[in-house]
Amino acid sequence: MSALAPPDAAALEAAAARIAPHIRVTPLLSSPGLDRLAGRRVYVKAECLQHTGSFKYRGAKSAITRLMAEGGAAGVLAYSSGNHAQGVARAAREAGLPAVIVMPRDTPELKRDRTRADGAEIVLYDRFGEVREAIGQEIAEARGLAVIPPYDHPDVIAGQATVGRELAAQLDGLGAETADVVVCCGGGGLAAGIALALAEAAPGMAVRPAEPEGFDDTARSLAAGERLANPPGGQSICDAVLTPMPGAMTFPILRAHARPGLTASDAEVFAAMRAAMVELKLCLEPGGALALAATLFRKSDESSDPVVAIATGGNVDLAQFERSIA
Amino acid sequence: MSALAPPDAAALEAAAARIAPHIRVTPLLSSPGLDRLAGRRVYVKAECLQHTGSFKYRGAKSAITRLMAEGGAAGVLAYSSGNHAQGVARAAREAGLPAVIVMPRDTPELKRDRTRADGAEIVLYDRFGEVREAIGQEIAEARGLAVIPPYDHPDVIAGQATVGRELAAQLDGLGAETADVVVCCGGGGLAAGIALALAEAAPGMAVRPAEPEGFDDTARSLAAGERLANPPGGQSICDAVLTPMPGAMTFPILRAHARPGLTASDAEVFAAMRAAMVELKLCLEPGGALALAATLFRKSDESSDPVVAIATGGNVDLAQFERSIA
Repeated sequence: MSALAPPDAAALEAAAARIAPHIRVTPLLSSPGLDRLAGRRVYVKAECLQHTGSFKYRGAKSAITRLMAEGGAAGVLAYSSGNHAQGVARAAREAGLPAVIVMPRDTPELKRDRTRADGAEIVLYDRFGEVREAIGQEIAEARGLAVIPPYDHPDVIAGQATVGRELAAQLDGLGAETADVVVCCGGGGLAAGIALALAEAAPGMAVRPAEPEGFDDTARSLAAGERLANPPGGQSICDAVLTPMPGAMTFPILRAHARPGLTASDAEVFAAMRAAMVELKLCLEPGGALALAATLFRKSDESSDPVVAIATGGNVDLAQFERSIA
Repeated sequence: MSALAPPDAAALEAAAARIAPHIRVTPLLSSPGLDRLAGRRVYVKAECLQHTGSFKYRGAKSAITRLMAEGGAAGVLAYSSGNHAQGVARAAREAGLPAVIVMPRDTPELKRDRTRADGAEIVLYDRFGEVREAIGQEIAEARGLAVIPPYDHPDVIAGQATVGRELAAQLDGLGAETADVVVCCGGGGLAAGIALALAEAAPGMAVRPAEPEGFDDTARSLAAGERLANPPGGQSICDAVLTPMPGAMTFPILRAHARPGLTASDAEVFAAMRAAMVELKLCLEPGGALALAATLFRKSDESSDPVVAIATGGNVDLAQFERSIA
């Protein structure tokens, strides 16, 4: 991977053109109730309505359409806590490629089921005892599969950037010129992609990464100017965004373009899930509600009005959803 | 009301033009999982994402913008189990008009709260002992308010018809020329509006009304060729669509344009709510999931492929939603 450069403007454009016929332009929603809760105008980009229930389909589709255009592969492999898995499984099936997904053993059942339903083969590993990259590389080499990384890859970042391109057009249609765009941040692929797209299409908008309390590696890294890891042993309900440290490719992009990071607690995430349901009729998974939680409950003096939260995914088990809204 | 004629093509066009700047074009969603469940291609029009959480905002906005264009009123009054109430309250507030809502005492708390949050005054009545039309007329006359009926009014029907116009354009974009469009049916305003719009814009598509078991007045009336009432004492979880009989204005439209009606049980409605959440990440209220329930679980030999279900609303109490998905 080390030889790859981050995507430039032409790469963003090419990825958008490749995936445009396949992705959903997700709506930008709002409600007076959310505005009251946040004390400012809030827009929510409902990326949970994307195919496979999260933004991850965009990056996977970008990577796999590029792969196919350049000669194809025997198949693809991804390591993922669930949403990237589903995106890769769906995009691979659409391309007629077999897919192997290396997935933590504690992945929510719904995400495993949905990944299997798209025809992928699942290999489970222990999140706290094994290194998924090593497991993935070994299988990929043995079977000649192309690895689709979850964030540190130019085609993946360029695919996620289409969220930012859509958002810039949607906000322009609403007459908004400046806004913070709060984006949940695990490895940083979505945040970096949106940051690149906004830097080009809407320079008055800037990404603010949102992370779970105890997993604020990106916020601390941005403050320090260098990549810092999370302390081990943290716990969070946001299974989708638990990564050890910012990505090697994504972090320099965020350092160049992002504003300071925000965090939210599990309780705030649950409250944001309830608010998304009551006000917008959206089912969000915890990680998918993280940016909204930070937007609603962690507003600071430097917060923008309006503000945008990306609702990144909705792949939550029924039982967990029930506990969350209780 | 008796002097009013149903909306003609020009009235549909005028209503669409009046409300276009204000309504959301709601997305038409699909998922491989829903297709598997139904055994055919299913499209869901996510009208729960409309302002105020249901299609009712369209008809209310249509009626109130027309009222304002023709000289305004001292205020408006509506009788509604909840979604029409919210639509009227929001559209009235946007027009700067006071709104009085006559609402059954057993309306879900969420719908009352949300109606109040839009500044409306609420008058409660007993669904089984009082006649809402009489209560409404008395207040309206005393205070000089314009009544916005929930379905038997040309401007309301013309507003709901915009769902059908959008749908025709969306299905055309997907290359579909024929389809059943399953629409939940209380008084029939939405079903009649969509039926009129499709008759004009997509003659290969036809409305099939969906009703709760025990409240299949429209299905029986269509079969009989005349308006029949529901037997008293029925119970259904679908609070939004419990009306005594088809509307005087809406029924002739359905008789002219609709295919046979479908029903669904409470258990099928709950299963459809779960499916909408898992597959589409939408929170639907029971009445809002009724058409999807009939689509998924009551397919007959004469069912079309593809088929469209309108997901009409998402205003469900958290506690009720929790019970529904359990």
